Amino acid sequence: MCPFMTQYDTVRAIQWDDNHLVLLDQRKLPQAEQYVHLYNAEDTADAIRNMVVRGAPAIGIAAAYGVAMAARRCFKQYPEHWRERLQPAMATLAEARPTAVNLHWALQRMQTLINRELQNPSAQLLALAEQIHQEDIAANYDMGQLGASFIQHTTAVITHCNTGSLATGGYGTALGVIRSAFGRSKIDQVYADETRPWWQGARLTAWELARDAIPVKLMCEGAAAHLMKQGQASWVIVGADRIAANGDVANKIGTYSLAVNARFHGVKVMVVAPTSTIDMNTARGEQIPIEERPQEEVLNVNGQSLAAPQVEAWNPAFDITPARLVDVLVTEKGAVLRPDAEKMAELMSKA
Amino acid sequence: MCPFMTQYDTVRAIQWDDNHLVLLDQRKLPQAEQYVHLYNAEDTADAIRNMVVRGAPAIGIAAAYGVAMAARRCFKQYPEHWRERLQPAMATLAEARPTAVNLHWALQRMQTLINRELQNPSAQLLALAEQIHQEDIAANYDMGQLGASFIQHTTAVITHCNTGSLATGGYGTALGVIRSAFGRSKIDQVYADETRPWWQGARLTAWELARDAIPVKLMCEGAAAHLMKQGQASWVIVGADRIAANGDVANKIGTYSLAVNARFHGVKVMVVAPTSTIDMNTARGEQIPIEERPQEEVLNVNGQSLAAPQVEAWNPAFDITPARLVDVLVTEKGAVLRPDAEKMAELMSKA
Repeated sequence: MCPFMTQYDTVRAIQWDDNHLVLLDQRKLPQAEQYVHLYNAEDTADAIRNMVVRGAPAIGIAAAYGVAMAARRCFKQYPEHWRERLQPAMATLAEARPTAVNLHWALQRMQTLINRELQNPSAQLLALAEQIHQEDIAANYDMGQLGASFIQHTTAVITHCNTGSLATGGYGTALGVIRSAFGRSKIDQVYADETRPWWQGARLTAWELARDAIPVKLMCEGAAAHLMKQGQASWVIVGADRIAANGDVANKIGTYSLAVNARFHGVKVMVVAPTSTIDMNTARGEQIPIEERPQEEVLNVNGQSLAAPQVEAWNPAFDITPARLVDVLVTEKGAVLRPDAEKMAELMSKA
Repeated sequence: MCPFMTQYDTVRAIQWDDNHLVLLDQRKLPQAEQYVHLYNAEDTADAIRNMVVRGAPAIGIAAAYGVAMAARRCFKQYPEHWRERLQPAMATLAEARPTAVNLHWALQRMQTLINRELQNPSAQLLALAEQIHQEDIAANYDMGQLGASFIQHTTAVITHCNTGSLATGGYGTALGVIRSAFGRSKIDQVYADETRPWWQGARLTAWELARDAIPVKLMCEGAAAHLMKQGQASWVIVGADRIAANGDVANKIGTYSLAVNARFHGVKVMVVAPTSTIDMNTARGEQIPIEERPQEEVLNVNGQSLAAPQVEAWNPAFDITPARLVDVLVTEKGAVLRPDAEKMAELMSKA
């Protein structure tokens, strides 16, 4: 871990504190910085379900700690049958956010260890949860360094949604690249889309960057093209929720509009995501189902209705950016320039 | 005025009621439909300043009625010196929104009549104010018919900000085209950008269209590109705040992003504006100054702060869509396909 990285990296949304899990309550940000203390799997599942913790990598890590806490209790109460007694807690965690791929990936890693002969299940499962957590941070550091190497000189960059310490074990994916590049004096200004309708940019990304003294300006999504036209930004740097085998990227709604505008203006697009986000069983982006969420998320802000009662809204949660609009995909296994199916297969074949 | 137009045209934000001006209070929409009754120029100027009425054409019309009310009072009190006594009220109205071009255009028309020999100043100035009002509605009807003629078959369209009866004397510019095309069964669905940061789409456009039973769905700006990619819309139809002599269009922030995405997806762009919006003294869009408004408009919603206290925002109010991204400009003097300086000069030379 490079020394320049620590200065702009002070937020940790997930922490293991001696004997329990501590989560930064993201629902309260930025008005309050409150931490939730969790001592068992059921409360951890509730925290995932209720969005105390969000972001696919972060959810996976929290669930792993949840398993470790459940195993500790089961082994103490039922030293002979702790594996069977553990299964209801595993199921509860798995159901907390059924679509989050990283949640199931993390539970599967824990289950693989559970299936082995263990000398000290409590300690060994906690150690694996901590390993999953640390591996995620390490991957983010690696991606941050690699991504920053593509940014050539002092410039402004645009980001969308939240991909930072709040969405991961720490440091972040796209925000990790931004942290690294800022640490190397390659970025002088970050423009963060406010990210309607959930305001992840306004509530989370701006808070995270401001806290680490990285210059950030919020803007409405509609202003990004105007910024690009003025020549004020040279990179769009975003994360991904799922990447198809041909390199098409599903990410938060609004990403695709940014990518189209970036190509039109000669601004480059960087997607930063661990390889666990890549779904080699999905050939192309068109095959990724796009969740349409309740229209109330668009129509109401802080419980107040913006539109007339009879008005309807269309609320797709994600969009698909085709691989041809992606200049570079950065993963912990390496970077892919202008991804396509062949390059993606080569990346995934690496150890 | 075609009979099919009245069915989808029930909103009037400006009305002359026997002896006074009645304005729909747009600050209260859509939660409440309240009308403000004004009996003099000073209160009319306040209403313009405080955004009871907004939209360049609407402001001009309200100011004309304000002059008529001031003249009525001055002529009654000072039959010999009513012209001199009227000037402070004229100045107050002119200062209410110093940048609104239509405001000064309307006051100039009133002043020209004031300078003549008048038999009955009160009646004649009121008649001119009513004429300015009716001419605006008539121009909107004409533009609505002309614009609708370019829309070929049943389709969805995208609009931005508010360009309807609330922004004009009635019927609207871009929304007038949408009303006309819907009346001819050419449009089956309108998608309205919510239009951050002021929510004109959510608060005004959706209210106006829903009230006239024209199917409207609100969406966040970031979703428009995703909609276009799905082939769900074939036109972007917007208004303009100012058009340069070469056809470049200044309009509400977010318009340019829509236009870039429209070109990328083969969606056509229609700009609808009266020729009073065209500024032949400004050669190109780059010469139009872009107002940057207070960052609080981005950071706060309904008085509640969204971002952390130390976070800054960038809040440009308008952007410039270059003429080459405009497929058709519709005015009351006719339409211009793919506008350029030569075609604009030809348009403006028409009677």
